[in-house]
Amino acid sequence: MFNKLLLATHNQGKITELKSMLSPYNIEVLSALDLELPDIEETGTTFAENAILKATELSAISGLPCLADDSGLCVDALDGRPGVYSARYAPNRDFDAAMDMLIKELKDSGNNDWSAHFSCVLALKIPEQSIRLFEGRIDGTIISTKKGAKGFGFDPIFIPNGYQQTFAEMSKEQKSTLSHRGKALQQFIKEVFQTE
Amino acid sequence: MFNKLLLATHNQGKITELKSMLSPYNIEVLSALDLELPDIEETGTTFAENAILKATELSAISGLPCLADDSGLCVDALDGRPGVYSARYAPNRDFDAAMDMLIKELKDSGNNDWSAHFSCVLALKIPEQSIRLFEGRIDGTIISTKKGAKGFGFDPIFIPNGYQQTFAEMSKEQKSTLSHRGKALQQFIKEVFQTE
Repeated sequence: MFNKLLLATHNQGKITELKSMLSPYNIEVLSALDLELPDIEETGTTFAENAILKATELSAISGLPCLADDSGLCVDALDGRPGVYSARYAPNRDFDAAMDMLIKELKDSGNNDWSAHFSCVLALKIPEQSIRLFEGRIDGTIISTKKGAKGFGFDPIFIPNGYQQTFAEMSKEQKSTLSHRGKALQQFIKEVFQTE
Repeated sequence: MFNKLLLATHNQGKITELKSMLSPYNIEVLSALDLELPDIEETGTTFAENAILKATELSAISGLPCLADDSGLCVDALDGRPGVYSARYAPNRDFDAAMDMLIKELKDSGNNDWSAHFSCVLALKIPEQSIRLFEGRIDGTIISTKKGAKGFGFDPIFIPNGYQQTFAEMSKEQKSTLSHRGKALQQFIKEVFQTE
């Protein structure tokens, strides 16, 4: 086991969610922002590849156990886009503009099926050990009007199946039990903190 | 822990090496050949991606803990080729022809530096658990004349740095201590059999 964990991300939304979900456990959680570590270029074509890349490089640089998140929104009518390119879908990572672009693309597609899912892969790299991958997915529907101000990214236009609120309307506790990231992190917690 | 392990490969050379290296441990080792399981298409662009794909799919099909190997020869003067496409470099997986093609490509390149390395990624998928990745690498030199009849694949034209014999001239014990696959498997054995 380990008592420090570095989150390999500069995304404040991800950092807030992961720190909150890890707060019940006896571990000091730092982020790449806290330590002013470099942003690793996401050259992979899959969530797993990018997560592996970030965890491996930042663990090597810092010498710390490192957890990286790669995640995104995959829209069926757009053949899975924006997918791994979700964070780079809009210029300057402006998600307000990105959501408008996505809604326009869906309207232009003429497809009435606005099914989508969020996917998340967490990669854990502990120095001298194998990389471990934890995956989570949540299916839902894109809506044509943004709703809610919580969360981050595409949350205001995503309603998980079985619910009537967008991720941006839910409390962080509720989003954490449902979300792609929450599910992947629950698997991580189960294996890392609750076994042995 | 588990007492059965499925090797997610139909490659007889890999099966022989992995079974031999795992023989000292108290575990029943089966292969995708033994169980007549389908060959999973390697659609990934990295060793890790293909290994994850094979381990995940064959573990899901069989319900067994599954270890997949993706590995290949990366030649510096050929910008890392054949790399993940090593097994598909020659038609009909004829490695005798593949070695001739590779030597010809290197001669034609005009580059006198015939440095190369073998890389191996092993992916372990235990049902209901995270995927773990174990990596190994061995640096060496390509030679222009095949030597030795042991091993498989590109072994007859690869001499590891610090040695004078090709992998195909070495005993399986000696190759196992040096090779990319041996190193990845040693990491696997250390984490899976020798901890806790």
